[in-house]
Amino acid sequence: MPRTRLALPATGPVRLGPDAHAALLPATAEVRSGFWHARREANASTSIPQGPGLLESAGNLHNLRLAAGTAEGEFRGAYPFVDTDVYKWLEAASWQLAQWAPGEGGPQAGRLAADVERIIALVAGAQCGDGYLNTWFQLVKGGERYRDLRWGHELYCAGHLIQAAVAHHRATGRDELLEVARRFADHIDTVFGPPGSGKPIDGVDGHPEIETALVELYRETGEQRYLDLAGYFVGRYGHGLLGGDAYCQDRVPLREAENVEGHAVRQLYLLAGATDLATETGEAELRAATERLWQAMTTTKTHITGGLGAHHDKEDFGDPFELPNERAYCETCAAIASIQWSWRLALLTGQARYSDLIERTLFNGFLAGVSLDGESWLYVNPLQVRDGHTDPGGDQSARRTRWFRCACCPPNVMRLLAGLEHYLATSDGTGLQIHQYVTGDYTADGITVRCETDYPWHGTIAVTVEETPVDHPWTLSLRIPQWCRLGPGGEFRVRCGERTYDAPVTDGWLRLERTWAPGDRIVLELPLEPRLTAADPRVDAVRGCVAIERGPLVYCLEGVDHPGGGLDDIVVDATRPLAVKHRPDLLGGVTTIVAAGRRRHLPDAGWWPYGPAADAPHSDGEPLELTAIPYYAWANRQDGSMRVWLPTS
Amino acid sequence: MPRTRLALPATGPVRLGPDAHAALLPATAEVRSGFWHARREANASTSIPQGPGLLESAGNLHNLRLAAGTAEGEFRGAYPFVDTDVYKWLEAASWQLAQWAPGEGGPQAGRLAADVERIIALVAGAQCGDGYLNTWFQLVKGGERYRDLRWGHELYCAGHLIQAAVAHHRATGRDELLEVARRFADHIDTVFGPPGSGKPIDGVDGHPEIETALVELYRETGEQRYLDLAGYFVGRYGHGLLGGDAYCQDRVPLREAENVEGHAVRQLYLLAGATDLATETGEAELRAATERLWQAMTTTKTHITGGLGAHHDKEDFGDPFELPNERAYCETCAAIASIQWSWRLALLTGQARYSDLIERTLFNGFLAGVSLDGESWLYVNPLQVRDGHTDPGGDQSARRTRWFRCACCPPNVMRLLAGLEHYLATSDGTGLQIHQYVTGDYTADGITVRCETDYPWHGTIAVTVEETPVDHPWTLSLRIPQWCRLGPGGEFRVRCGERTYDAPVTDGWLRLERTWAPGDRIVLELPLEPRLTAADPRVDAVRGCVAIERGPLVYCLEGVDHPGGGLDDIVVDATRPLAVKHRPDLLGGVTTIVAAGRRRHLPDAGWWPYGPAADAPHSDGEPLELTAIPYYAWANRQDGSMRVWLPTS
Repeated sequence: MPRTRLALPATGPVRLGPDAHAALLPATAEVRSGFWHARREANASTSIPQGPGLLESAGNLHNLRLAAGTAEGEFRGAYPFVDTDVYKWLEAASWQLAQWAPGEGGPQAGRLAADVERIIALVAGAQCGDGYLNTWFQLVKGGERYRDLRWGHELYCAGHLIQAAVAHHRATGRDELLEVARRFADHIDTVFGPPGSGKPIDGVDGHPEIETALVELYRETGEQRYLDLAGYFVGRYGHGLLGGDAYCQDRVPLREAENVEGHAVRQLYLLAGATDLATETGEAELRAATERLWQAMTTTKTHITGGLGAHHDKEDFGDPFELPNERAYCETCAAIASIQWSWRLALLTGQARYSDLIERTLFNGFLAGVSLDGESWLYVNPLQVRDGHTDPGGDQSARRTRWFRCACCPPNVMRLLAGLEHYLATSDGTGLQIHQYVTGDYTADGITVRCETDYPWHGTIAVTVEETPVDHPWTLSLRIPQWCRLGPGGEFRVRCGERTYDAPVTDGWLRLERTWAPGDRIVLELPLEPRLTAADPRVDAVRGCVAIERGPLVYCLEGVDHPGGGLDDIVVDATRPLAVKHRPDLLGGVTTIVAAGRRRHLPDAGWWPYGPAADAPHSDGEPLELTAIPYYAWANRQDGSMRVWLPTS
Repeated sequence: MPRTRLALPATGPVRLGPDAHAALLPATAEVRSGFWHARREANASTSIPQGPGLLESAGNLHNLRLAAGTAEGEFRGAYPFVDTDVYKWLEAASWQLAQWAPGEGGPQAGRLAADVERIIALVAGAQCGDGYLNTWFQLVKGGERYRDLRWGHELYCAGHLIQAAVAHHRATGRDELLEVARRFADHIDTVFGPPGSGKPIDGVDGHPEIETALVELYRETGEQRYLDLAGYFVGRYGHGLLGGDAYCQDRVPLREAENVEGHAVRQLYLLAGATDLATETGEAELRAATERLWQAMTTTKTHITGGLGAHHDKEDFGDPFELPNERAYCETCAAIASIQWSWRLALLTGQARYSDLIERTLFNGFLAGVSLDGESWLYVNPLQVRDGHTDPGGDQSARRTRWFRCACCPPNVMRLLAGLEHYLATSDGTGLQIHQYVTGDYTADGITVRCETDYPWHGTIAVTVEETPVDHPWTLSLRIPQWCRLGPGGEFRVRCGERTYDAPVTDGWLRLERTWAPGDRIVLELPLEPRLTAADPRVDAVRGCVAIERGPLVYCLEGVDHPGGGLDDIVVDATRPLAVKHRPDLLGGVTTIVAAGRRRHLPDAGWWPYGPAADAPHSDGEPLELTAIPYYAWANRQDGSMRVWLPTS
């Protein structure tokens, strides 16, 4: 099959422009059952439907009515970006609506569509005549605009409005919200521009986000000036317009940066926008910067869960290899932004590593952010909660919370889960690439394959060709996960009927080229032996420790499974085998891993916990069976301690 | 010699009341030369004299003039507690003046006395007619008072004013500042009281400090109501008057608390006040709480440097054993507050452990806070600065700073160093106790002993009896430092002429009772072999690491001494001997410790720094001589990496 330009997908958060310089194009997938289907069901049946009520009780909708003049009272909420909670919910609801064909979805779909319509009307009603829209500045700041770009979040809010509008348009074909977003974007385009452009303000927002949104608005509308405006914003960070500090991405221009830094979500949204921009413009320097920064981030600043962020103070990345456990600041939004950025790099470059990180983040650092029932949330996603932990409460709590004061994460989770099928597969003119394995159908270019799997609990993934061009060879590319290539869990296998393939894996892809016929069936077996993982020795926080992993899942211990003491005196015996035990009764059904360990005898050191190294206590102690659960499922039972990294002695 | 009530010392920050329930009384000491004399010289000749100029340029004195109506302009400074920088400087200057007898000290003393007089006049001029004094609230808040006790710091400021006033009175016998402080304290006493007292406000300050100051004002004036007011404040924390959170010490009443928590300096000042209170009232429950909390703090929340605080966010203590290195938040003020609290416990209980912690803190966590030249400062005192560190600048910088935006620490260092002689020795009616060893004279109850030592560089401490009651046996008690009792550096020895004592050490004290004669000479030899120290295994941050120590000093590596690479790939060989090398040329003269180590070969892990535990790289690498310097002397050369805890493999 010759490499040709393919049809654009109808829906999805990334739709490439006609001149995009991408290696891959997003393909359509449908998730039918299995692990992610269950998470999406909780999202569709609980999280998203509860959104309007929570936005009402938190005051977000009230603020929109105030701005429209249809209600009276005080502005509610503590931040200038509270409107984005509404926009992210609208985006989530739109992707959700897109999953139902007209007339499908029953009363649930009808209610959701009505909520969306009602809330879009509130948004539209709050918009100023010239297109400006930010209830905080309209109501609290007396209409003052763009005077506090560092903290004001006005363009950040516009970015989320644009993303919601594009989603709504793609999902429903309707343009009420898109018109609101375009009016705001057009207004911004009259205000912001470089010196000499005749625009009144040369500036960028303290919180990047509008850049990726503007590229998508260009993609949706075809209007070049939105792409140009995105390019202007991306280029103006790092030039001191915001005071020159790393927090706001203003210390160094992105094209010159050597590592990710500053506020993690700000950095990652900016990089998503920069990658969009490089994809559409083909600029080599910008592309090189995004690839370089991704490599630096994963090598030196990523937690094993895919979580990103090391400082509670400023929500910043730390120094290289500064990856604390109890003080990890792995904001759920940063995990989401990482997935969004990595997906754009996957499309741009075609390399599997980006989807490797997406998989790890989805199953761990991202998914931990929402409870199993879809009703409560974690913001910072630590890798450890100590015995004797004094919980601060609030957004940074180690306990799940019904809603946050800064409620950025919950609707962000909703929109990613609702649009998850758009991050699973691609096509490239030579065939179909499966990036993530779910039970469902993957479709592109006249090809449909059906995938059946109980992944990540079982490693068998059966792919059956349903539709295929006749007499046209094409390549089915299966991503062989990076965790599997690292070993030592054994080799993966690929079978077709009785035949075992011995195809090489190139850059993470197993490529099977042939002339396919309907009914052809490929079975991929991924080795799910549990494994003990250690870190680069420069990650000081986990020296002398191992983590338990199985497939894409990172495991943890919870105090509730280890009565009779805490977790801080436990050691794991790394020389003993790990046992796998599926527990359908536990946490919605999880595979646990049982390890041999001990509870240390801790000598009474008097009042000083430091002493001669030669006298350091040995790891004797009571034998103890350690039960590890998947990290994503922690904090779904009772409060208590937790740890991912386990001392070996 | 019968146990009798002894004369109160003339000067010093703690003067016990006539009915105090203390085991020990502060004795007078005079530091003549040696280690601490040099630090105090830098304080006296550089830090303190530069204070007025810095307070002028930072706006603190300007604010006082504004409040007095003798200047025009805007309030300067970012915090409601900027007045305390002035008060702490006045306290430092007062203790400094006390070291010069009238007519001594030359032009330096004259200039300082004039500065003190001038600045006291500014303070007095700013005071409201009813005694209230806080320039922030007078100038910025339009005279509004006590409406924001959680953040307002009004009583905190009053506390530092009182401490300065008491110091000035004790040092000079003059009462200009004491009258200002009394007027303010009297005013506060009309405002604050329990329900039913008829006082308008039942409340406490978000930042404890006034409690310890009020007890001292009681001691200085004999007025019981100041003690009662201190007791009221101590008792009202933990009852939700401030919102009920740990940050402001309001989560749990102090008498019920099980561990230190919340903002470290707030906690420690409160505990100093509580210990003062228990000392004066004899209350067993409060005394037990302070002893319990000290034990919990040292066992679970103290860095090896004596530094306290684990969170940049909120400047809080962490959970038990949460003692990060690069993100240690060991505020210099917390080290000072710890010394102040421990000294009060030493007096109350007579136990040597409190002075053990004081020694460790003085030589390490405290002294690192000021540069060797007395001109620049560290606020957070981390235990590690990584290769590739991106310095945030500002108060939390790992580089020394000339003055801080929140300048609480520098004048706090000045006041402790200027009054350091008051933390060195005690008497108890049976003799003299030497808590800290300096070259100088120690005097109490007709006893004077002279101490000569080059400690901490050398372990020989010679104590000569200069004056003694005739035919009256008394006990010379020498604190045998806890670091020495921990071994394995060998045993200490005590000689008198040719005779070696084999006296037992009880609770840290070597007690030598006899009828002394002038000229009697005791030589204490402390073993200064360098040693490798490990931590309780629950201190996750330092697993697999050792620290180098010698005597009371904690050592560190600095990048500047290890060119050709960073510090993050270095390991120390814990099986090889440590060598001691005195370097008179280096950092004002320090003893360095040379250890055998290697620079690891780090494998290229691709883009992911986690991999199979079985494949973890071994510690091969280039042999490297590691040069350790005392921690207190770090950051006195060039910017760069530093670490206290060194991996062993």
